[in-house]
Amino acid sequence: MRYMLIIFVVVFLSAKDIYVMHFEKYNEPLLRDIATSYGIEPVPESFEDLKKLLDSKENPITKTKARLGRRLFFETKLSKDDTVSCGNCHMIAEGGDDNKPAAVGIEGKKNPHHINAPTVLNAALQSSQFWDARAKTLEDQAKGPLTSPFEMSISPKEAVKNLQKIEYYETKFKEVFPKDSKPLSFKNIRYAIAVFEKTLLTRSRFDKFLEGDDRVLSKKEKEGFSLFIQAGCIRCHNSIALGGNVLARFPLRKKLGSNYQIPFENIGDFLGRDKKYIFKTPILRNITKTAPYFHNGSVKELKKTIDIMARYQSGVILTTKEINLIYDFLKTLEGKLVNYHID
Amino acid sequence: MRYMLIIFVVVFLSAKDIYVMHFEKYNEPLLRDIATSYGIEPVPESFEDLKKLLDSKENPITKTKARLGRRLFFETKLSKDDTVSCGNCHMIAEGGDDNKPAAVGIEGKKNPHHINAPTVLNAALQSSQFWDARAKTLEDQAKGPLTSPFEMSISPKEAVKNLQKIEYYETKFKEVFPKDSKPLSFKNIRYAIAVFEKTLLTRSRFDKFLEGDDRVLSKKEKEGFSLFIQAGCIRCHNSIALGGNVLARFPLRKKLGSNYQIPFENIGDFLGRDKKYIFKTPILRNITKTAPYFHNGSVKELKKTIDIMARYQSGVILTTKEINLIYDFLKTLEGKLVNYHID
Repeated sequence: MRYMLIIFVVVFLSAKDIYVMHFEKYNEPLLRDIATSYGIEPVPESFEDLKKLLDSKENPITKTKARLGRRLFFETKLSKDDTVSCGNCHMIAEGGDDNKPAAVGIEGKKNPHHINAPTVLNAALQSSQFWDARAKTLEDQAKGPLTSPFEMSISPKEAVKNLQKIEYYETKFKEVFPKDSKPLSFKNIRYAIAVFEKTLLTRSRFDKFLEGDDRVLSKKEKEGFSLFIQAGCIRCHNSIALGGNVLARFPLRKKLGSNYQIPFENIGDFLGRDKKYIFKTPILRNITKTAPYFHNGSVKELKKTIDIMARYQSGVILTTKEINLIYDFLKTLEGKLVNYHID
Repeated sequence: MRYMLIIFVVVFLSAKDIYVMHFEKYNEPLLRDIATSYGIEPVPESFEDLKKLLDSKENPITKTKARLGRRLFFETKLSKDDTVSCGNCHMIAEGGDDNKPAAVGIEGKKNPHHINAPTVLNAALQSSQFWDARAKTLEDQAKGPLTSPFEMSISPKEAVKNLQKIEYYETKFKEVFPKDSKPLSFKNIRYAIAVFEKTLLTRSRFDKFLEGDDRVLSKKEKEGFSLFIQAGCIRCHNSIALGGNVLARFPLRKKLGSNYQIPFENIGDFLGRDKKYIFKTPILRNITKTAPYFHNGSVKELKKTIDIMARYQSGVILTTKEINLIYDFLKTLEGKLVNYHID
């Protein structure tokens, strides 16, 4: 009986062609070079370098525009009933999101598709916005929450009308957009908010590591980074924000013998781009502060999220120790807002 | 007995936590958006757009420099015994490589590490050069083959001396590098060759598809592209050349129960960066024309290579039909040199 079991297992193993990871520790220069090869680079520390990275001819970054954008970002007059600002769902001091599973707008309305508010911190580093990447720019993204009936629920006309009553805005829009015949316009509201958001970048110990300082990360954190690379996380969580670019199917794999498409509850029926389970890979900077996770906020624990992602995206079963090490690495991405001296 | 087998298999399966892919066909806009999200874009068609993509202040691209570089690329006087030029291993009409497992230099010397000559076509689109990414630029890369005792085996001094005897070069270097006190220098030899190489880009049907033409790819080829994405190939074979950037471990996985580090013969003992099996992901443009495959040229058949890559990198066992579809897609990357009107 025991021999038979062994024989069956051996036969089964060779027949199934199972391929497992072999993990090893990489040294610092190799870790850095691999990161660079995936476009991962430090967040700029100066306003000049910020402009080099994010400026556009269409909507030039200036400090006065960022200041106006900041006021607009916290302006509840941009919501239908004067109760909600951008800052409600994107709490800058709290990881840039609201820590709720689904976003809540005017009159306490929950997002009908149970969509989780993504962080605004470092959002400017993404190549597209929203969970299904349907906006290319922050300027374009701002339309969504402002006009959505479940968020701020204001029309472009109302938004402009509300601000016209406030002298600060009449003066400031003229100052910031002097060439426009109508400086206080819905377009310029969006543009100023977007420029403010471009200044919401965070730097962490990981940036110092990328810049060459080996000592800022512990042995465990570096081991976690090695694992993060070898478990395949880096393949999609790439570029400066460790995410925010790649469109990928989630879940990419299913458990053998299972019919389930999704490894967690399908709340809200938001199935990504074209209902094909295609999502923009979320950014990992400050990920430890932006629970709950996934587009529908269905998983509270980051460690469980790491486990799910490894299984369903990379086909890798991580041990508890390995999950803990990747978690340790992710903690090094907890950053502080860079002071670009906007004031 | 039969029941027991079934029971064992069921128990084993649930215990092993096996995650398998589920494949589906994507429509054209989605295929294009996913490609873009991985930085895959069309190769430029005009000299102006080529310059936008590849020009550098250090070594500006000009047509006269490219012409000089072309002559140098085919110049056997740049080898110790006047028998080998860059063009020997990088046959431009033959996919940009030599179709040999290992490169052959002066006196018929084989590369002692059995290293396969990578293609020069589209090499300029890579973020680094050589299999272990040890050169950042083509200007830097050119040093290697010129001075290596197993390739052209010439010293910088000899190279300059040999060219000084030829009037064409005396005149042309002055014309191309008028500001230099010594126009005919080893540095400028490398710079001119690099500029010529920057013009060696190819375009294929795939570029037209990226530009919006749905009809240039067949149903099968598009299905192959869907598979290429979902099998995870695109994660590392990314950006404009579909490769050439990412440093990745190969093999990333091992077969369960196997002690082998490498899924093919270890010829030449070249184990990549830091001997850690870290290789630069090769480019896939014209891959159908650059057999044999891998850093040591150990596999002749592209379909076998696709199978190996899926197993050892993505942990996916492809069916023969799926391998054929990915192969069909890779054939769409067979390109023709773009005519940038250098002459």
